[in-house]
Amino acid sequence: METGALALGIDIGGTNTSFGIVSRRGQILAQGSMKTLGHPTAHDFVRYLALELSTLMDEVGRDKILGIGVGAPNANFYTGEIAYAANLPWEGVIPLAKLIADVLHQKVVITNDANAAALGEMMYGAAKGMRDFVMITLGTGVGSGVVANGQLIYGHDGFAGEIGHIIAVRGGRSCGCGRKGCLETYTSATGIVRTAAEWLKQTDTESLLRHVPQLSARAIHEAAEQGDTMARELFEYTGNILGQALADVAAITSPEAFVFFGGLAKAGNLILEPTRRSLEDNLLRVFKDKIKLLPSALADADAAILGASALVW
Amino acid sequence: METGALALGIDIGGTNTSFGIVSRRGQILAQGSMKTLGHPTAHDFVRYLALELSTLMDEVGRDKILGIGVGAPNANFYTGEIAYAANLPWEGVIPLAKLIADVLHQKVVITNDANAAALGEMMYGAAKGMRDFVMITLGTGVGSGVVANGQLIYGHDGFAGEIGHIIAVRGGRSCGCGRKGCLETYTSATGIVRTAAEWLKQTDTESLLRHVPQLSARAIHEAAEQGDTMARELFEYTGNILGQALADVAAITSPEAFVFFGGLAKAGNLILEPTRRSLEDNLLRVFKDKIKLLPSALADADAAILGASALVW
Repeated sequence: METGALALGIDIGGTNTSFGIVSRRGQILAQGSMKTLGHPTAHDFVRYLALELSTLMDEVGRDKILGIGVGAPNANFYTGEIAYAANLPWEGVIPLAKLIADVLHQKVVITNDANAAALGEMMYGAAKGMRDFVMITLGTGVGSGVVANGQLIYGHDGFAGEIGHIIAVRGGRSCGCGRKGCLETYTSATGIVRTAAEWLKQTDTESLLRHVPQLSARAIHEAAEQGDTMARELFEYTGNILGQALADVAAITSPEAFVFFGGLAKAGNLILEPTRRSLEDNLLRVFKDKIKLLPSALADADAAILGASALVW
Repeated sequence: METGALALGIDIGGTNTSFGIVSRRGQILAQGSMKTLGHPTAHDFVRYLALELSTLMDEVGRDKILGIGVGAPNANFYTGEIAYAANLPWEGVIPLAKLIADVLHQKVVITNDANAAALGEMMYGAAKGMRDFVMITLGTGVGSGVVANGQLIYGHDGFAGEIGHIIAVRGGRSCGCGRKGCLETYTSATGIVRTAAEWLKQTDTESLLRHVPQLSARAIHEAAEQGDTMARELFEYTGNILGQALADVAAITSPEAFVFFGGLAKAGNLILEPTRRSLEDNLLRVFKDKIKLLPSALADADAAILGASALVW
C-alpha cells in the first residue's frame, strides 16, 4: 500500500453514490457506495454519507487525507453548490461543499460529475495526453465535460458542459429541467428506456422486451445481443440522435475524441456504432473521419471517483 | 504617430477584404480594402492583395512591421491553410499563410475570421477583461470565436468555432457546405435576405421590401426602422432561430456574453432584442438572466483587423 498523501473522491449519481480513497498515482485504496435516493433532505444524505466516509477514512488513516473532491450533477466548481439538479432528489440550491466540510472538517472541492469523469480519463484513462476532447456520460441523464487547450471548461459561472440539455428535438419530450426535447430525454439510459416503452405501447411488434420483468438500458442491451430486432433498432434510433447532437458539439469545440461513460455506454458498439455513423453523416466536411469515439478506459465508477479525487491535487 | 513595432492585420470576408497597420495599443495607423471576389484563383487574389499591402507598408516603413495576422473564413491557425470555405470563391485547400509569406517575406499567422474578431474584442472592445465569451459574426455566413478560460478555443485541428454550421433546422435550407439547415442559412446577412425572398414570393403581404431595388440586410434594416411589418417580422423570425441556437451553445460553454459583429449585427436591437427573448426562453434555468448580448464595441472592420493584428504579438 502507498503511504503518501491521499485524496477522497466522491461521485454522486442520480441513483447511486460511490466514493473511494485514491493515491496520487490513481490507485484506489478503499472504496464504497450507497444509494443517493431515500434521504428526505440533502442534510440527511450528507450525514449518512459522512458516516460511510468516516469508516473508510479510518481504514487508511484520517491524517493522510489531503482533501475531498466531489463530482455531482449540476455541481458548481466556483460556488461549491448544486443548483436545480433535475436528476437529484433535492430541489433548489444545495451548498454541498459546505455541508460536507462542516461534518468532515476537510477541504472540499466539487464539480459537475461529467467534469470529474473527464479529469479521470485525462489523467488515467482513454484521454491520457489529449488536450481537446469531450467526455460524455450516458447515465440517468446525459452529462459532459469539455476539455479544450488541456483545461476543463467551467464557463463564466461554472455550469459549462450541459450537453444533455441542448435541444435534440424541438418541441420533443418533456425533460426534468422543465423544457422540451433535451438530448438526455432521448440518449441517456433512461431516455432509451423511454423510447422502448413508447414503441412497445404504440406497436404490436414482437420483442424480447415485452417479456422482461423491468425495462432498463441493460435489458435492452441484453435483448440486442440476443438479436432482438426492436432492441437493435432502439440503439440505432438513440445513436442517430446522439450523433446528430455530437456533430453540432464538434462544430463548436473540434475535439480529438468523444469519450463515453455511464450505464448506456456499457452497451459498447451497440450504441457507439450507430452514433459514429450518425456523427459522420452529420459532420461538417472539415471534421469528417478524424474524431475518435472511445469507451471509457476506466472501470465502472472508477473514472468519476478518480476524477473527483483529482480535484484535490 | 507611434513609432514602436507594428503589425499588419488582414480580414478576408466573403465579399470584401480589409487590412490595416496596427500599433500594439490598438491604434490603426493606415488601412485599406479591396473586393475578395473577382480574382480567378487564390494566387491572383494574393498577388493583388500584396500590391495593396506593399503600398500601405511603405507608408509607415516596412522595417517596422513585425508580422502579418490574417482572419479568414475556415482559416486554420495550426496549418496556415483555408480549407473548403463555403463563403470564399476558392475551392479545396488553400495554403494562404504560405502564399502571402512567399510574396511579402513576412511572418504570417492566420485564423478563422471570427476568432480574429474575438481577439480584437477581448483586447480592445466589448469583451475587454472577459475570460469566457463567444464572438458571433453575422455576415455573409455566421462565424464564431469561442473564448474559454481566457483563451481562444482552436480545438484539436484548429477548426473549432463553426457555430454557423450547427443544424438550426433539421432538413432545412441547403447550405454552401453541402448540408441542410445550418444556422447560417437563416441568421446570416444572406440568411435573412433568403427568408425575405421566400416570404415575398409565398405571400401577397404589402411591404416596403417589394419596392427596394435590391434585397439586402441593410434594406430590411431600413424598412424595419420605417415600421414595415414584414421587415420587423423578419428580424423576429431570425432572432428566434439565433436565440435557440445560442441557448444550446450556452449550455456547452456557459459564456459571460455573446458579442455580435457583422452586417446583420448593424441592425442593433432590431436583431438583438428578439435574439435575447428567444435565448432567455430557451435557456436552461441555471443560465437564465445572466448572459449579456453585446454589440461589438469596435467600428466596422476594425474588430477583425485589430484581432488579426493581435495574432502577431
